[in-house]
Amino acid sequence: MNFLSDTTAPAHPRLIEALAEANTGYRPSYGADDISARVEARLKEVFETDLKLVFAVSGTASNALALSVLCPAHGAILCHDEAHIHRDERGAPEFFTGGGKLIPLQGAHAKIELDDLDRVLGEIPEGFVHTSPVRVLSLSNLTESGTAYSPNEVAERADRVKDRPAFVHMDGARFANALVSLGCSAADLTWKAGVDALCFGATKNAAMGAEAVILFPSAMDRFEELQIRQKRSGHMAPKMRYLAAQFDAWLQDDLWLTLAGTANTRARALAEGLGAVDGIEILHSVDGNEVFARIADPIAEAMRTAGVQFYQWPDGSARFVASWCTQEAEISKAIEAAQ
Amino acid sequence: MNFLSDTTAPAHPRLIEALAEANTGYRPSYGADDISARVEARLKEVFETDLKLVFAVSGTASNALALSVLCPAHGAILCHDEAHIHRDERGAPEFFTGGGKLIPLQGAHAKIELDDLDRVLGEIPEGFVHTSPVRVLSLSNLTESGTAYSPNEVAERADRVKDRPAFVHMDGARFANALVSLGCSAADLTWKAGVDALCFGATKNAAMGAEAVILFPSAMDRFEELQIRQKRSGHMAPKMRYLAAQFDAWLQDDLWLTLAGTANTRARALAEGLGAVDGIEILHSVDGNEVFARIADPIAEAMRTAGVQFYQWPDGSARFVASWCTQEAEISKAIEAAQ
Amino acid sequence: MNFLSDTTAPAHPRLIEALAEANTGYRPSYGADDISARVEARLKEVFETDLKLVFAVSGTASNALALSVLCPAHGAILCHDEAHIHRDERGAPEFFTGGGKLIPLQGAHAKIELDDLDRVLGEIPEGFVHTSPVRVLSLSNLTESGTAYSPNEVAERADRVKDRPAFVHMDGARFANALVSLGCSAADLTWKAGVDALCFGATKNAAMGAEAVILFPSAMDRFEELQIRQKRSGHMAPKMRYLAAQFDAWLQDDLWLTLAGTANTRARALAEGLGAVDGIEILHSVDGNEVFARIADPIAEAMRTAGVQFYQWPDGSARFVASWCTQEAEISKAIEAAQ
Amino acid sequence: MNFLSDTTAPAHPRLIEALAEANTGYRPSYGADDISARVEARLKEVFETDLKLVFAVSGTASNALALSVLCPAHGAILCHDEAHIHRDERGAPEFFTGGGKLIPLQGAHAKIELDDLDRVLGEIPEGFVHTSPVRVLSLSNLTESGTAYSPNEVAERADRVKDRPAFVHMDGARFANALVSLGCSAADLTWKAGVDALCFGATKNAAMGAEAVILFPSAMDRFEELQIRQKRSGHMAPKMRYLAAQFDAWLQDDLWLTLAGTANTRARALAEGLGAVDGIEILHSVDGNEVFARIADPIAEAMRTAGVQFYQWPDGSARFVASWCTQEAEISKAIEAAQ
Repeated sequence: MNFLSDTTAPAHPRLIEALAEANTGYRPSYGADDISARVEARLKEVFETDLKLVFAVSGTASNALALSVLCPAHGAILCHDEAHIHRDERGAPEFFTGGGKLIPLQGAHAKIELDDLDRVLGEIPEGFVHTSPVRVLSLSNLTESGTAYSPNEVAERADRVKDRPAFVHMDGARFANALVSLGCSAADLTWKAGVDALCFGATKNAAMGAEAVILFPSAMDRFEELQIRQKRSGHMAPKMRYLAAQFDAWLQDDLWLTLAGTANTRARALAEGLGAVDGIEILHSVDGNEVFARIADPIAEAMRTAGVQFYQWPDGSARFVASWCTQEAEISKAIEAAQ
Repeated sequence: MNFLSDTTAPAHPRLIEALAEANTGYRPSYGADDISARVEARLKEVFETDLKLVFAVSGTASNALALSVLCPAHGAILCHDEAHIHRDERGAPEFFTGGGKLIPLQGAHAKIELDDLDRVLGEIPEGFVHTSPVRVLSLSNLTESGTAYSPNEVAERADRVKDRPAFVHMDGARFANALVSLGCSAADLTWKAGVDALCFGATKNAAMGAEAVILFPSAMDRFEELQIRQKRSGHMAPKMRYLAAQFDAWLQDDLWLTLAGTANTRARALAEGLGAVDGIEILHSVDGNEVFARIADPIAEAMRTAGVQFYQWPDGSARFVASWCTQEAEISKAIEAAQ
Repeated sequence: MNFLSDTTAPAHPRLIEALAEANTGYRPSYGADDISARVEARLKEVFETDLKLVFAVSGTASNALALSVLCPAHGAILCHDEAHIHRDERGAPEFFTGGGKLIPLQGAHAKIELDDLDRVLGEIPEGFVHTSPVRVLSLSNLTESGTAYSPNEVAERADRVKDRPAFVHMDGARFANALVSLGCSAADLTWKAGVDALCFGATKNAAMGAEAVILFPSAMDRFEELQIRQKRSGHMAPKMRYLAAQFDAWLQDDLWLTLAGTANTRARALAEGLGAVDGIEILHSVDGNEVFARIADPIAEAMRTAGVQFYQWPDGSARFVASWCTQEAEISKAIEAAQ
Repeated sequence: MNFLSDTTAPAHPRLIEALAEANTGYRPSYGADDISARVEARLKEVFETDLKLVFAVSGTASNALALSVLCPAHGAILCHDEAHIHRDERGAPEFFTGGGKLIPLQGAHAKIELDDLDRVLGEIPEGFVHTSPVRVLSLSNLTESGTAYSPNEVAERADRVKDRPAFVHMDGARFANALVSLGCSAADLTWKAGVDALCFGATKNAAMGAEAVILFPSAMDRFEELQIRQKRSGHMAPKMRYLAAQFDAWLQDDLWLTLAGTANTRARALAEGLGAVDGIEILHSVDGNEVFARIADPIAEAMRTAGVQFYQWPDGSARFVASWCTQEAEISKAIEAAQ
């Protein structure tokens, strides 16, 4: 029963088949192939807008690339104190931006509170040569606590920075999980709410290794720079067709939404089961495929002994991640082990 | 009555004379001159230890150079949320370190609280490839609120990080003011308390423009790297004798301590006078030459009308800085204007 | 008849099968999986030595990562003027090293001449703070002209820099082609000849997208730094098993050598055929899978009309690249078209 | 008899007096003072055009700052192989640009040959994502061989890159010496010939340490970025009045031209005298205050014994630099020592 991370799960077999199908004949390198073009066209339908994109092989690369075209080296990026870009990327955003500054904000359940956002914005002037100005607001959706910002919550935060001028970046490593949970459209959760660039992750939701940095029309003038930086950082894979093929299969027939839905369902079942156990407290709303719980030591020990694998979060709580291939039986057994 | 900043004050005449005296004959470039050597020898006496140093022309340069040899690009620097290196240097530390991460800590009166230091250290693991490890703790002394860390307070904080491994950096833009106020030795306040590198500022205390980055024995193996970075960042002035000459005159006969003492005395007098006024609250202990006050609007207006110049701090309070040349009469008039 | 680049070719079917086989069950992320371990063990056999490695998805990433742990930001990298790292990576080495300096050397057939190497080494002092010292010598094998350095030629150049101190880096995007052509051992062509780090490319030789940065014992102390930079640059793929699986299948039963041999055979046949045509001059020794030719305009036109695709090199010559899947019939047709 | 470098000479006494005069009362920090404004106005007269500028304390800083606002991190800078920015700044341009690429060109007497410029421009395409495009052409005037580009020579080179788009940067560490020697106007030698940014050096011509980065109208839209980078690199001196005061005195009554004229006269006299000696060959036209000579070993030895100090150039030749304070008697004695 592996709940360590959705990155320990295999890819969906359909994606491997797609690689085999793409593996025929010569195709142009570096993204000029027909499969890449098909994915771009499909994403325009999914997001109901024009857009530009590049592929990458990790969420860290995707986030750092996006931020590097949105924030100058002498600018600042606002993010939640627990954001992946701040805590878990070994300073990749600072590296790619050439020394940009991340400013961590507070808020329960890993959501940036409006009050803290207003406080920090009030402290950082525009046009003052000594101070790094705010150039990006970064929101994770799902957040690092597995909660989701609604379109309205995104818009409220985006509105605060739009006149700086600043861009809004969304770390969507688990965007599909948030989207399915919220039941809104992909457009509603992104550009219609003020998001300029989305890091759209497939890896954690059944891909082998495929992320897309998507620029919506408000940021599309940064596309040439994005391609240059993709090249310069070694992320312009020569045989791009294989990254595109994963997305192609993943988007077809809404496979991505189906798989995210399954993972979410499993996570919620786990949360319900665990939440009913004395000595276990579910810490955050389960808006996607992650469950955070504070578990009494003897129970945690019993679960581990029964083979339930989970990750210990820096604050001492337990994180369980369900994936597209988590089985109902695994959930039941994990709950049993806790009882 | 200019209390805007000690950087608006002129240099002490003795330093200009020293420039004239240094202005004779040919001397080796880039720091190989006799005056530079004399300053180094004198600083070893002042700090009662072996040390290495380079000069720089601004506190920002001095801090960024020091941090860049103490913290790798993939490391983190802990500092107070209000630290000059975080708020007022346009990301210079991030630039010089190649993308290092500054992590802001909390604490009243611009002093890092031990609890918050412990919390953050607890959240940042060592040896985890995904997370920027703590490599520097930076303390400002004077702090940005004009308060001073005592040797003991420095040591308590330094002890927390020594085994990471991490270095302790002190931003001493107003080190002389802190030292005079505390009445301890320069050694007690630095290397004996665990400080590995000191940015020793003269500019705000009557120099024309002269700072020294001092490496104490525990960090002296970084000296070659420091010289390289001084060169590479354009701070290895060809005619270094003129930077050295300023320090030379400044250190002679303890002029630096006398001047800092004067500024401190003026600031304390101002604080006492203003503190007695209804509608004015002195916000922090006046441990050096800075006074922070919350002033009722009509009083502030009256003071401005009377020609009292001061700086409005981001939190809305008023900052008054006394310098080596602030006159007693100016203090009296400023207080009168407030009454 | 596509001779544009070996990156336009598909992957070998065996590698896709390997992906499917790797696609079962949960596996640790970030390279801690069993397939990665198996590849490491196999590479130790291939190179007959201890070594450390990380995977990457492009040659640009692989080169830039390797160089960034071999050369400090203030150091210099010597390479041929036509080197991929200098001409075709959009400054990735400069980006990853934090501003390292590439110094281009001359030499016929894209091989660094000893005389020019000696000249440049003579001009660049050690221990002079104003000048970026030589810290890396980079050799491409195959070179950018499709020629190969023999083990002896590598050693002669490596010896020149060993005492600087400097490392020797080999860009082995087409290492297999060079190795098969030279008929020596992988050890002879690398660490035994003084190479400290090899960028070992599989992508151009039938992989989907897989490169390995290999550190030999003389550079293995840089491994932790290499992993940190792999993470920090977004190249630590979460589901690393799929990169490893490609290498695993590629190395099995010497598939990599067989495929390189085929490509080399095709290239030589093409060179022989074209070389016999009046109006075509073969410009460099065909030591691998690349043929460079100066072709009279009418012939080039006739070839294009017949569907022969090739790349026009910056100097106006024609580059033909054979791949693992180039057919004998394609060679014959291309030669016919030229006659 | 010190001919080592014009940076070993003292400052002109008039500049020290100017510092004393500037040392009165409070003045705004960071360049907002009246003396800075006066220098800006005076420079507009000198160059007969609108312009923007910032001060710096070293030629390395000045060059690196200028280049960093003219060239993106993914761009290339063309310069002569012997250029100071390539050989003598420890990679400062690479550091400040965030990893820009310097491409060294050939040409006798340290002047870029048009043929080599054309060759390199022909090899570097525009709009090709894999290759760093040419964004700056940098010319040193005086060159590193002490020769001068005439306005026409500057214009010929500038014209070659203007449509890339690319900027023309002039390293004018010894601009005054070139200007006096050529007898043209400052405007003719810069913006009228296609120069977009000039690093205008005073340090080597009798200042204590003062350089100006000047943006002419064609590059003035980079001024805000230049100020930001000046701050971020620690070169925005708090008490900027003292940098301004040096320029102020230096420009007054054409002192700068007079001093450069003296140095040039001394250098020419030295070249004439040495050139008449058997066993000494003057290597380059003496267009400023530098003399390069190949000197037979016994003669060189005799000169050193007589106390003549000079610098050995990397190519083995001898460099003599005259300064504003070099005496006629010193020239005579040096020549005598060689005879």
